[in-house]
Amino acid sequence: MSDTSDQTTGATRRIVISVDAMGGDRGPAAVVAGMAKSAVKNPDIAFIVHGRARELEPLIAKQRTLAGRVEIRDAEDIVTMDAKPSNVMRNGKSTSMWSAVEAVRGGEAEAVVSCGNTGALMAVSMLRLRKLPGVDRPAIACLWPSRNPQGFNIMLDVGADIRANEKDLLQYALMGGSYARNGLGLKRPRVGLLNVGTEEHKGRAEIKAAHDLITDAAPNADIDFVGFVEGGDIPSARVDVIVTDGFTGNVALKTGEGTASLIREFLTNAFKATPLSRIAALLALTSLRRLTKRIDPRRVNGGVFLGLNGTVVKSHGSADATGVSAAIKLAYRLAESRFTERLAARVASTSAAVQDDAGSEEQGEQTG
Amino acid sequence: MSDTSDQTTGATRRIVISVDAMGGDRGPAAVVAGMAKSAVKNPDIAFIVHGRARELEPLIAKQRTLAGRVEIRDAEDIVTMDAKPSNVMRNGKSTSMWSAVEAVRGGEAEAVVSCGNTGALMAVSMLRLRKLPGVDRPAIACLWPSRNPQGFNIMLDVGADIRANEKDLLQYALMGGSYARNGLGLKRPRVGLLNVGTEEHKGRAEIKAAHDLITDAAPNADIDFVGFVEGGDIPSARVDVIVTDGFTGNVALKTGEGTASLIREFLTNAFKATPLSRIAALLALTSLRRLTKRIDPRRVNGGVFLGLNGTVVKSHGSADATGVSAAIKLAYRLAESRFTERLAARVASTSAAVQDDAGSEEQGEQTG
Repeated sequence: MSDTSDQTTGATRRIVISVDAMGGDRGPAAVVAGMAKSAVKNPDIAFIVHGRARELEPLIAKQRTLAGRVEIRDAEDIVTMDAKPSNVMRNGKSTSMWSAVEAVRGGEAEAVVSCGNTGALMAVSMLRLRKLPGVDRPAIACLWPSRNPQGFNIMLDVGADIRANEKDLLQYALMGGSYARNGLGLKRPRVGLLNVGTEEHKGRAEIKAAHDLITDAAPNADIDFVGFVEGGDIPSARVDVIVTDGFTGNVALKTGEGTASLIREFLTNAFKATPLSRIAALLALTSLRRLTKRIDPRRVNGGVFLGLNGTVVKSHGSADATGVSAAIKLAYRLAESRFTERLAARVASTSAAVQDDAGSEEQGEQTG
Repeated sequence: MSDTSDQTTGATRRIVISVDAMGGDRGPAAVVAGMAKSAVKNPDIAFIVHGRARELEPLIAKQRTLAGRVEIRDAEDIVTMDAKPSNVMRNGKSTSMWSAVEAVRGGEAEAVVSCGNTGALMAVSMLRLRKLPGVDRPAIACLWPSRNPQGFNIMLDVGADIRANEKDLLQYALMGGSYARNGLGLKRPRVGLLNVGTEEHKGRAEIKAAHDLITDAAPNADIDFVGFVEGGDIPSARVDVIVTDGFTGNVALKTGEGTASLIREFLTNAFKATPLSRIAALLALTSLRRLTKRIDPRRVNGGVFLGLNGTVVKSHGSADATGVSAAIKLAYRLAESRFTERLAARVASTSAAVQDDAGSEEQGEQTG
């Protein structure tokens, strides 16, 4: 767990985010620009940034708002997108990614943000930060544009592991609930279990078993379990958190992104089709910008790794400054709410409750 | 296999479609209206329609274009949306769904269309039509709007079975390829296997094994195997056919539909937002209608059951006349190309080739 005992609590405490500047598709310039965007909006944020110092120094010097708020850690090597996670675990000590995770492990930073290789980032995070007690499989949670007032739903796992048994799915429900409380400010999040039909006789054995485990755990976990949901419910107002295995979640996430991008393309073509539609596009510019913003994948950028002793935010590999800034904002918000500590307490307490079949102590609002 | 030997081949042969008029969410009126729509467009189409005769007679009498082209089979019972498939298999003989499948079994019709309960339709179809030799698990294939010239890609399985082993996935590749040749007119369809990453070290064991099986079978099956694809590739121009298990495929399908419907809703709101955007919507009306048509789920209505001795098309439960008409058109097209016979030949020949590791006889273009 990251050591935050020496920091002042309250609205004005400075929060340090560890940033892996290398390994994204757009290189360190986009990452530093994203840091600058976040720094303008958040006077309390500071950075430790990891990568090749000779490349980073001039980029950071150009951004006035970063002056005095960034410490550079020189790291010569870069984890490439096609690197094998097992290889990075063995030979990755000199990479910017490793160095960035290490800063959270040592308590120097409260959360880490990286645009690099997801599998490698998960492997290094598991190796260095270790899993929370009671968690077998960490998960990656993403935000999904939705019809809910908060604007987003949470789905997990979207790709940490291709398998999940019933106990993992229970943990995902607890961790997703905790994330919804701390990341989206929901008091009692509604959690659904992804299945192919809402009838109870359908679905795989582990999903049916998970249904029973989550039903039993929900009262003590401050979540409202709504039962099975289907793919069409992911953006719905029926549910705040969608629980599934990492294979299905990853396919669903990429299918949703692919569909949105196809429709954006069709829409752009529709507005270019005739002179009249080009005029229409001009007239509707503000409204269309609002729409584009609502479904802009950069705004929901940031997969959060759940179940580790420390907050890790994975930004899209292709993130630009806006995307990186969104990921940093998410890391900041989670660090500010002491998310890792709350999640750890929640998982420990509910695991105990499930095992003992005894009531766990109430954690109070916004705890876990 | 449906007996079509007594029918004249060529462009003018009359094709009889068996239609289950009951069990859809909108009742028999929408189904009969859909039949009328298809009849106007296709002078060669005729129908055997199944359901309550006293309800169907007045509906059909109102549609002049159906005069002399419809035979009604009275069936008193209806399979409801919440009926258990196993129950329908035991006690469903008096239902319109059973009667509709039976007409294909007896060779009176070349394909069956139903808006009813998917699980029950698959169960009754398997029981009465039986699986094709060499097929262990039949699959449901759907059409997906895509960037390809043909406008659609094919994905299977989208929900016939929640499991699929490597041999099932190979069969899906062959059956999907055959469907793409006969349903979309592609000479050598490109087939991809859905996975969470395109790197070969990722994914579940059965998917890796299927990768090898399909690679070996592709040359003799007239398909071009492109390897692993991800969720974002489903609507892409990289691939024509996407192969996956029924659980993942069903989640992907419903996620795609849910995302499209969310964006349509956001778009409608964007155009209602200001007086200026309302004017813009008027100006862009034609272009927007073209877009709406392209992503209209009714136009891609019709899941095809593959791997049975007979063509079964499952229409959306909520299909209106346009949706039903699209499903009938698809059934007509597949019947016209003698799809079932071609698919059976293809599966038999490739299964033999895989088992013997000997070259199968060439089936020629558009065969299977």
